[in-house]
Amino acid sequence: MRHLIDPMDLSVEDIDRLLDRADDIAKNPEKYQEVCKHKKLATLFFEPSTRTRLSFEAAMLELGGSVLGFSSADSSSASKGESVADTARVIECYADIIAMRHPKEGAPYVASQYVNIPVINAGDGGHNHPTQTLTDLLTIRREKGRLSNFTIGFCGDLKFGRTVHSLIKALSRYEGINYILISPEELQIPEYLKKDVFEKKGITFTEVDKMEDVMPQLDILYMTRVQRERFFNEADYVRLKDSYILDMDKLKIAKKDLSILHPLPRVNEISVKVDNDPRACYFKQVLNGKHVRMALIMELLGVSADEH
Amino acid sequence: MRHLIDPMDLSVEDIDRLLDRADDIAKNPEKYQEVCKHKKLATLFFEPSTRTRLSFEAAMLELGGSVLGFSSADSSSASKGESVADTARVIECYADIIAMRHPKEGAPYVASQYVNIPVINAGDGGHNHPTQTLTDLLTIRREKGRLSNFTIGFCGDLKFGRTVHSLIKALSRYEGINYILISPEELQIPEYLKKDVFEKKGITFTEVDKMEDVMPQLDILYMTRVQRERFFNEADYVRLKDSYILDMDKLKIAKKDLSILHPLPRVNEISVKVDNDPRACYFKQVLNGKHVRMALIMELLGVSADEH
Amino acid sequence: MRHLIDPMDLSVEDIDRLLDRADDIAKNPEKYQEVCKHKKLATLFFEPSTRTRLSFEAAMLELGGSVLGFSSADSSSASKGESVADTARVIECYADIIAMRHPKEGAPYVASQYVNIPVINAGDGGHNHPTQTLTDLLTIRREKGRLSNFTIGFCGDLKFGRTVHSLIKALSRYEGINYILISPEELQIPEYLKKDVFEKKGITFTEVDKMEDVMPQLDILYMTRVQRERFFNEADYVRLKDSYILDMDKLKIAKKDLSILHPLPRVNEISVKVDNDPRACYFKQVLNGKHVRMALIMELLGVSADEH
Repeated sequence: MRHLIDPMDLSVEDIDRLLDRADDIAKNPEKYQEVCKHKKLATLFFEPSTRTRLSFEAAMLELGGSVLGFSSADSSSASKGESVADTARVIECYADIIAMRHPKEGAPYVASQYVNIPVINAGDGGHNHPTQTLTDLLTIRREKGRLSNFTIGFCGDLKFGRTVHSLIKALSRYEGINYILISPEELQIPEYLKKDVFEKKGITFTEVDKMEDVMPQLDILYMTRVQRERFFNEADYVRLKDSYILDMDKLKIAKKDLSILHPLPRVNEISVKVDNDPRACYFKQVLNGKHVRMALIMELLGVSADEH
Repeated sequence: MRHLIDPMDLSVEDIDRLLDRADDIAKNPEKYQEVCKHKKLATLFFEPSTRTRLSFEAAMLELGGSVLGFSSADSSSASKGESVADTARVIECYADIIAMRHPKEGAPYVASQYVNIPVINAGDGGHNHPTQTLTDLLTIRREKGRLSNFTIGFCGDLKFGRTVHSLIKALSRYEGINYILISPEELQIPEYLKKDVFEKKGITFTEVDKMEDVMPQLDILYMTRVQRERFFNEADYVRLKDSYILDMDKLKIAKKDLSILHPLPRVNEISVKVDNDPRACYFKQVLNGKHVRMALIMELLGVSADEH
Repeated sequence: MRHLIDPMDLSVEDIDRLLDRADDIAKNPEKYQEVCKHKKLATLFFEPSTRTRLSFEAAMLELGGSVLGFSSADSSSASKGESVADTARVIECYADIIAMRHPKEGAPYVASQYVNIPVINAGDGGHNHPTQTLTDLLTIRREKGRLSNFTIGFCGDLKFGRTVHSLIKALSRYEGINYILISPEELQIPEYLKKDVFEKKGITFTEVDKMEDVMPQLDILYMTRVQRERFFNEADYVRLKDSYILDMDKLKIAKKDLSILHPLPRVNEISVKVDNDPRACYFKQVLNGKHVRMALIMELLGVSADEH
């Protein structure tokens, strides 16, 4: 592994190794606090994403490394017409590893073709966001103790939500997972996922349009937001909108050990009352995201805690 | 003390302790240059304030810590509709302490209610800016050797100037201070300050509309800017504007040991000729601000120089 | 040397010393990785320039120092009407050395007059950009082993290209250099350069309008971009534009050891096919720029590797 562009670049073994390391980092942070000393991470954010950028920066700082970069395209050379390939080759002279966010799909991949330092895709358009997928996997494993044999519900906009698509693809390699897809009809997962992932692997799945109907079955509930403008007609929106808002009422019929995930930022699709329920895992997810990015940076830089 | 939201959260003893530590930091900077090693400060600036942000960042770096954050709301998740509470809970996973600037009054307080790491209010709307008040107090103590028994003039826009309000409230707890308030009538200090602070504590004060009339009495002159658009009518503005501009001429009748303070940035309310006068303290104030922020960060993180 | 404002502030001896140190840094990076520990660089970029800013930041980080600052004027106090002199005096309290980029010519010079810490001009309007000149000189010396006795072609917009003007002035102090100036007539180098530099020193030069005509003679080709809007008439533009685009075809008649330089960012004036030719030096230039900035920061801060 030299770069991380697509979550499917990672084998099941790669994932196990990264999650194991993330767990060790959480347990023994002092062991890791100098492992990236004198290493530099460049955060090249051609579109803003505070949460993701700061997660990478915190990760690098907690490994003892340092950080440089930019947080939006206006302050980058892109505004002068420079290609992504050229920017990457310039940054290669300044840093040891790159985390790149770009509105254009494929930009981090292009960058990775031109440089001799590792490139991490920190989100490219509606395409991939592999460290979010790693974060989700780590959260599931930390909460459930395993990555197989559970019922997971994906709720909200399943058509455009790239985090959902990536997580489904990643989970499709594990056994005994029961998928329940909760969305309005017009926001169901894309056909290619049904055919190329579910059908091809013989995985069954259920599609429903109301959270309430399936809540008692779920071990994991992965929430995303449904934007009003994504509905085809106002009548549907009015009829369904409350079905995609998680509140304490809907949680009454849920399992006691349900794990609620959300990639954040959350607007109103999860009531703030839920935050204090022990089943809410979305802020723990943030911490998990930092740990798994630390593990990933170490992996790609080829550093280990033992040498230190 | 867990957070610093309002300057009045600080007792006189808290202030003494912070200013003493700031003085020791100024005298022995090497003693402190590793005390915050492996600690991270998040500077969450929902509105830009270069001076304040860089003061916090310099403070943290000189304590051996590191810094991450954002310098304006456009590059933050706020633009995606995330609440301050959620942003704070996310940042809690990335940093050990937060300095937050926000255009909305109360935002840093809200943040402090949701996280287990210290939050410093770095300015919330027209409300509070407690580290500016600490900076002013440190400057007075460094210049005068005491926080009591002097005549202080506040000059300029006393109605909207939050630094003036906070400093008056903070000083009201010390003895023997003579207050002279120099402003156009429409920009006098708010009634609540007159009633709740001055009257309640039996403190007398004088209101005048010309700097020249009181200059010889002042031990300290705290300058702020009067913006043209704040005047009720143009005639008043033309008649009075020069009375709120400090120049060498007006200084002729001032005490030899007058201390001139200004929260900066200065536009034209102090002539640049004054900068070289030994009575000008406003650039020293900047340095003092860094020292007192270093002391505050240490206090809130519970670190001391002795353990190192 | 206290500041670096104009490349001509540097004597030939200064340049030799800086380039020697840059070479040693490239050879022995570990020797230098702590020399600026506890020192802070302020990058004050009143206009964005990602490449230059990140080069300075990488340089400081690789010397073990740390960095603070801003990357555009909107996030600085300048937007509140503060003068450059005041901003500099404030930053002096926060940092040990300043790198300033400013759209107004002379701004870094003004700053340098008000502070007791070194100021580096990181580009002031169309005026000076001394660290680019140092980068170019280091690149020539690294590629050719000398700063004299070669034929150099400058190609493109020679009228407005400040990097070209500065490099010509810097090179005019070395012996045996043959200058070939390749540009459309309306974009020839300014008269003052012809008179004050070339004529005064008795240096001969050739002006041509097509790269192809002189390619076989060149030891060094310094490329810059010609912007369409700089041409006086469309006919000239159409006739000449291809003459200012370097591609593999034009390189066929070039020397085997030609060195191609470009200050970057490159848009389309050099074909990407050229990037893989060993004669392309423009990405090496980026690395050289970091090394020479490291040398410069050390020089101005008065630190050396030997004390460490």
